[in-house]
Amino acid sequence: MSNTAKLVKVGLLGCGTVGTEVVRLLRTQKQDILQRCGAELRLVGIVVRDISTPRDPVVPVDILTTNAQEVVEKADLIIEIIGGIEPAKQIVMAALKAGKTVVTGNKALLATHGAEISDMVEQTNANLYYEAAVAGAVPVVYALRESIAGDVVTKVHGIVNGTTNFILDSMTNHGLEYQEAIKIAQERGFAEADPTADVEGYDAASKAAILASLAFHSRVSIEDVSVKGISAITSTDINTAQNAGYVIKLLASCERHSKFMPGDRDHVKINGNSEELSVAASSECTPNNRLINEQAGITVQVSPTLVSKNHPLANVRGAFNAVMVEGEAAGPLMFYGQGAGGLPTASAVMGDVVAGATHIVQGGQAPRELNYAHLPVIPVSESFSAFLITLTLTDTPGTLAKVADIFGTEGVSIARLTQENSEQGKLAVVSIVTHVCSRGSLDRTLEALDASESVAEILSVMPVLE
Amino acid sequence: MSNTAKLVKVGLLGCGTVGTEVVRLLRTQKQDILQRCGAELRLVGIVVRDISTPRDPVVPVDILTTNAQEVVEKADLIIEIIGGIEPAKQIVMAALKAGKTVVTGNKALLATHGAEISDMVEQTNANLYYEAAVAGAVPVVYALRESIAGDVVTKVHGIVNGTTNFILDSMTNHGLEYQEAIKIAQERGFAEADPTADVEGYDAASKAAILASLAFHSRVSIEDVSVKGISAITSTDINTAQNAGYVIKLLASCERHSKFMPGDRDHVKINGNSEELSVAASSECTPNNRLINEQAGITVQVSPTLVSKNHPLANVRGAFNAVMVEGEAAGPLMFYGQGAGGLPTASAVMGDVVAGATHIVQGGQAPRELNYAHLPVIPVSESFSAFLITLTLTDTPGTLAKVADIFGTEGVSIARLTQENSEQGKLAVVSIVTHVCSRGSLDRTLEALDASESVAEILSVMPVLE
Repeated sequence: MSNTAKLVKVGLLGCGTVGTEVVRLLRTQKQDILQRCGAELRLVGIVVRDISTPRDPVVPVDILTTNAQEVVEKADLIIEIIGGIEPAKQIVMAALKAGKTVVTGNKALLATHGAEISDMVEQTNANLYYEAAVAGAVPVVYALRESIAGDVVTKVHGIVNGTTNFILDSMTNHGLEYQEAIKIAQERGFAEADPTADVEGYDAASKAAILASLAFHSRVSIEDVSVKGISAITSTDINTAQNAGYVIKLLASCERHSKFMPGDRDHVKINGNSEELSVAASSECTPNNRLINEQAGITVQVSPTLVSKNHPLANVRGAFNAVMVEGEAAGPLMFYGQGAGGLPTASAVMGDVVAGATHIVQGGQAPRELNYAHLPVIPVSESFSAFLITLTLTDTPGTLAKVADIFGTEGVSIARLTQENSEQGKLAVVSIVTHVCSRGSLDRTLEALDASESVAEILSVMPVLE
Repeated sequence: MSNTAKLVKVGLLGCGTVGTEVVRLLRTQKQDILQRCGAELRLVGIVVRDISTPRDPVVPVDILTTNAQEVVEKADLIIEIIGGIEPAKQIVMAALKAGKTVVTGNKALLATHGAEISDMVEQTNANLYYEAAVAGAVPVVYALRESIAGDVVTKVHGIVNGTTNFILDSMTNHGLEYQEAIKIAQERGFAEADPTADVEGYDAASKAAILASLAFHSRVSIEDVSVKGISAITSTDINTAQNAGYVIKLLASCERHSKFMPGDRDHVKINGNSEELSVAASSECTPNNRLINEQAGITVQVSPTLVSKNHPLANVRGAFNAVMVEGEAAGPLMFYGQGAGGLPTASAVMGDVVAGATHIVQGGQAPRELNYAHLPVIPVSESFSAFLITLTLTDTPGTLAKVADIFGTEGVSIARLTQENSEQGKLAVVSIVTHVCSRGSLDRTLEALDASESVAEILSVMPVLE
């Protein structure tokens, strides 16, 4: 250690899989970190629930404690990887209140109490980092907080939950049923004993809320996210998707909507009169396919989505994560890597620790959560997408024409229709891919289909990403 | 503008495609940037070669000037996107000497005079940013400077030149010959009238030098890079690759080598005695496939490479760029996006401008180039890879056995061998994919093959990425 190097005292809260790897990196990388941020990082306390639990030999047992308050007081920089809301919230708030630097990987905490935490950061000028909260080692928080800061983000979407991607991948590429796939994911350590938070989409929803807040400079919490998980996905859905050229992925999608879709805005600008505006606004899907939102704002949702096999997100395999960020100037960017696991998550934590220590030593501050844009979160019925609808027809003449007519009446135009060879006496299965339309007009179409005598059953409805 | 906002005076050097888009973003994003960095960015001068050139109406003609010195004096933050060595170097050095913040997209300058520039940064404590110098909008410089700062990078490799990727993609997916593909790339604006710098790999080599410097905390300049371009690639090479399950990509590869490859280190650690070490070191490719480097250090190269169709880099199409970063803890990360073009590059420049302005307003500093690791650049003969060798056999009995024998003698083991159906009287074409071996042992094998009576001609040799 050089004589001029400063000392940054580090307190670690939580010493499970990720915590142990953080301790390892702090020890093995000591000399490198010293060079990188001009400070020696010294671990002054590790807060655990039970000191007597057997641990990896890399963990220095002499600094294990159950007293979080003491560690927060002693340390300059706190790493919180306990997870869950309490006691994590209380500890993080206390540390920020004392002006300490906080590095956290706690997505649930940020997605639920982000506003309160952000207010405390403003009040005390503390620094908060949370790269590990979204998509493990994939540096998408950095990308949104810093590298795309001179651009306008229009969309962030991606695979942010490794468990569900592993399950869907196993169903798609190894022909497993949902329950079999979960079992294998559990055996391999990719799913917890109770997989609810992952398979029902809640974990992805927390991450979606964090990504949307960052991308659109507006406050978005987990309650704003429309969530649908993968527990209802069957091997039939997987096969229907495959046959139509898609794979099913659980996508988190955060979108900014103006009153007009990008293409239309230009059109309106050129004509530049309010009449043109009102004409276009009279219908959601105008004949020339201009799309109009009733409201400007953002939509945030988690949903099983059919991804075209040519799309980069379709090729994200196993427990990997990938997030696409679309900038008005940058165009599409994709970030890909391991979304979970001790070592990858520890790598993300350590990047934040180096940044935090650097700011302690050299001054400057972490980018703050900004909500100056104050964009409202609008219902997903205001979002636009193509959809795949699978349904069975009743055994009466002219049913297909009647079904097509229902779509037309609601202004939803059909891109592709496939009727599977049906055996005599069995119901015909029809798959319909729509052009891009509003979720609202799709819902009205589904209502009408449901009421129609031509339709026996609507088997599945899923958004499509081409 | 709020009353408390500070003013950061910006000077722009260069107003071509990228410069014009930077001006546009500075104007359209004014309010957002104010919120993001707490400063109004005011453009105080735009340095151009010829003031009278017709320009996009977004460019304020009243601040156009040919006097760079004046703009450097006036501004707090300089954006240099002139490109090339002079006068860019002189202007950048003058700005840094005066302690100004510099944002540059000039890869040639950084790869050639990085040491001098870095020394000036150290001396005057100025801040230097260069995200736009590598892979356009893809934030790989941020990733290496910041997000992976707590990890150890073992490898950075990827597609960092859009022109050559477009050409190879056109040859692979549209069956074009090299010259036809260049012509189309030129027509579409993806290749310059004189495409030498791109197709011969020099542009990629500059980027490789910058990436290697950042990844390994060691000084690497363009002279350290082993370069091979794509001008010798034929449609036959493309087809041979396709048939063997690969696509040809021009890859920049930066690797850190220890004395032992990762797998061996563990092995040696377990046995932990010097005898084991010397036994293993006696052969480059030992029977159980342990690989030994003669030297620890880094290799940096640009080379056409066969990428397995299942590898994420194989699916990078058109003029897109993608860079993979492998961290010891993070595992593989991939960053993907548009590597060139006015808007994407301007987005990268603007991210740096916001970071630079934030540091001016709030204090703190940009990450410095660090070369504390002082890893030597070692010859590529010390690097390890699998290879595909295509050759024709002479029309004598037992040739195939003799060829196989030559590989064995040099310790290069064969993974797959394919002999194409040869017509009577024509030479048989043989494709051989090796297991991973050192470039050095491959070179000796090639020499022996060349000298052998069994081999008519060695048609091509290319590294393979599985």
